[in-house]
Order: sequence, then structure tokens, then C-alpha cells
Amino acid sequence: MAINQRLLKSITCREADTDVSQERKFIMDSEQKHEIYDLLVRQAESLTEDERLPIPNLANTAALLGESLEEINWAGYYLMVEGALVLGPFWGRPACIRIPVGKGVCGTAVAADAVQCVQDVHAFPGHIACDSRSRSEIVIPLHHEGKVVGVLDIDSPIPARFDEIDVAGLTRFAQVLERNCDWKRRS
Amino acid sequence: MAINQRLLKSITCREADTDVSQERKFIMDSEQKHEIYDLLVRQAESLTEDERLPIPNLANTAALLGESLEEINWAGYYLMVEGALVLGPFWGRPACIRIPVGKGVCGTAVAADAVQCVQDVHAFPGHIACDSRSRSEIVIPLHHEGKVVGVLDIDSPIPARFDEIDVAGLTRFAQVLERNCDWKRRS
Repeated sequence: MAINQRLLKSITCREADTDVSQERKFIMDSEQKHEIYDLLVRQAESLTEDERLPIPNLANTAALLGESLEEINWAGYYLMVEGALVLGPFWGRPACIRIPVGKGVCGTAVAADAVQCVQDVHAFPGHIACDSRSRSEIVIPLHHEGKVVGVLDIDSPIPARFDEIDVAGLTRFAQVLERNCDWKRRS
Repeated sequence: MAINQRLLKSITCREADTDVSQERKFIMDSEQKHEIYDLLVRQAESLTEDERLPIPNLANTAALLGESLEEINWAGYYLMVEGALVLGPFWGRPACIRIPVGKGVCGTAVAADAVQCVQDVHAFPGHIACDSRSRSEIVIPLHHEGKVVGVLDIDSPIPARFDEIDVAGLTRFAQVLERNCDWKRRS
């Protein structure tokens, strides 16, 4: 964690000290986000490479996301159990326990087997409000042998917090979990 | 969570506004701690009463402890899997994944089947340093059908953070989990 905190600090200082146009700033922000995701993927790999059980790997990587990403209020996992999404390890405040497939942003990600990147959760049909602070949300399905076994879910109090760089970065992050966990061993 | 935040705030204000002797302050602190644990036990009951799967109940109650207790840096669970303690849901920074029975404070709690309340973790033989900020620690074994199925583990950056009121309060908290989870269903 220490390495990452240093990187994040150095990025913040660089941004604050530089007088740039909005366009230049956007390019820098993109570069920073790519750098952060490169580091997060390496850290997720490092945290999970010696363990095959899903629960400890999900618990540690949820904490990693919570400690590392700016402007989020919840990061964690829901796992498919007996046909529904059930709360797994997470970072943030207590959350909804069960989400039916097809309901809300998480349930839609499973039903469609597609990443959901929602700019305004209040405008999302059937949104489940676990935390009233959440304004935008990203959900990445997790797969094992071609089936969805769960989702990675991140909420932000900022509208439109997530963009295509977050989609790409968190998809790579989720792939580390897909690869490094033995999804038949849930205990 | 909102109710608890209000209670904690009202307690903090009461303490700050009152000029009391150290002895009187100690009595008030004890009363406050009892009140906080009474509330935490009710909240744990409320969070877990409709769900029997251990993982979501452990995830939500770890978050509850992390949001509610002062001066702690880690709160979570290790579960017995194939004869060793394995990291479960938690609140705090990424942590050690596997702890052998008999090793460190958590492993000792399992081997002895007894609460461990350690005033200075650096003085504990074989202490496993997951987070260098931790100075004191409390570990409560969780039981099912007379066997230890896991532990509740809380770390503090303050030496001697935990006392007999914490032991009693967290034992009641752990009993809610013992009662409300079906420990045969770990997924």
C-alpha cells in the first residue's frame, strides 16, 4: 500500500503545480488513471498470486480498491449463490445483502453479462439505493468457465465518476480475480 | 448507521463539555462503552436477522464495527478452513491471508479456545504483524456446535485500547453471529 500512496501523492502534487489547459489536463488525467490502474492490477496480482480461495482474495482486493481509488464510497463484490447475487467482501458502509438477477445496476450486469457504467444512478430504472451518497456506479461481471459467478461493484458520490478508462482498468483488475481464484471453492 | 453516528456525536459532546475528575471520567467512559456495545449488538442483530449465509453477515458486521468503534485500524474475521485460519470479510487495509492455529494472537485464540485481549502486540510471542500501525488487539473465537469456526479480530493503533468491557461487549456481538449464521453454508 505504501508504494501506491506515494504514487497517488506524487500525481496530486504534479497536477497542482502545473498550469495547463483543460485539454492538456484531461490528457494528464487520462495518463494518471492509466498509471493508477497499471499499479492496481499489479497489486491485485501480488495480493492474490499465492491464494486460490475466493473470499480472502476478494476481501483484500476490495480493501485495495477502497484505499487507492479517489472519490468512491463503496467497493466490493456480490457473488452468485443459488440464482441470486449475495453480498461478498467489500470496503465501505454496510450494504444490501441480496440482489435478484435483472434488478438494479448489479442485477442488470449479470442479466446482460455486460459491464454497466452508470453516470447517474437516480436515472437508472430499478436502482437499488444501498447508500444514499452514491451518485454514479460501475459494475463488472466476473466469469468462471463462461458463466457469471459474481460482480465487482464500485459506487461514487460524484456523478459521472467513471469513464472508459475505469471500464478498461477495472475489467483488467477483475480478470486477475477470475484467473487467480478457484471459483469452485467458495469457503 | 445514522442512529449510531448521532449517539457517538452526543457522547463526544457530553464528554467535552463536562469538567470531571479522572475517576468520574472513567465511570462515564465505562457507561459510554456499555451503551455503544448495547447499540452495536442491536445493530448486528438487525443486520443479520434476515440472512443465514455467513459471508454477507460477516461483511456487514465488520463494516459496522469499522464505522462505529473509535481508535481501531482493522476489524474483521478469520475463518477455519482445512485446519487453518483464512482471511474473511474485514474493514481496514489488506491483511495476512493464512494464520496457522497456535500462531500469533488469532491462532492462539483458536488453540486455547479463549478470548485474547493483548495490551501490547509487540510483547506477544509470535505476533504476526499484518499492519505495522497495530499496537493492541482483541480476538474473540466464534463457535458452532462446540467447535471454533473462526475468530473476530480487532486491532488498534493505541496500546491497551481494549478492556474487560470490550471483551464482554464483543463477546455478545460475536454471539449474534454464532446464532444468526448457518455455519455449514460458507458460500
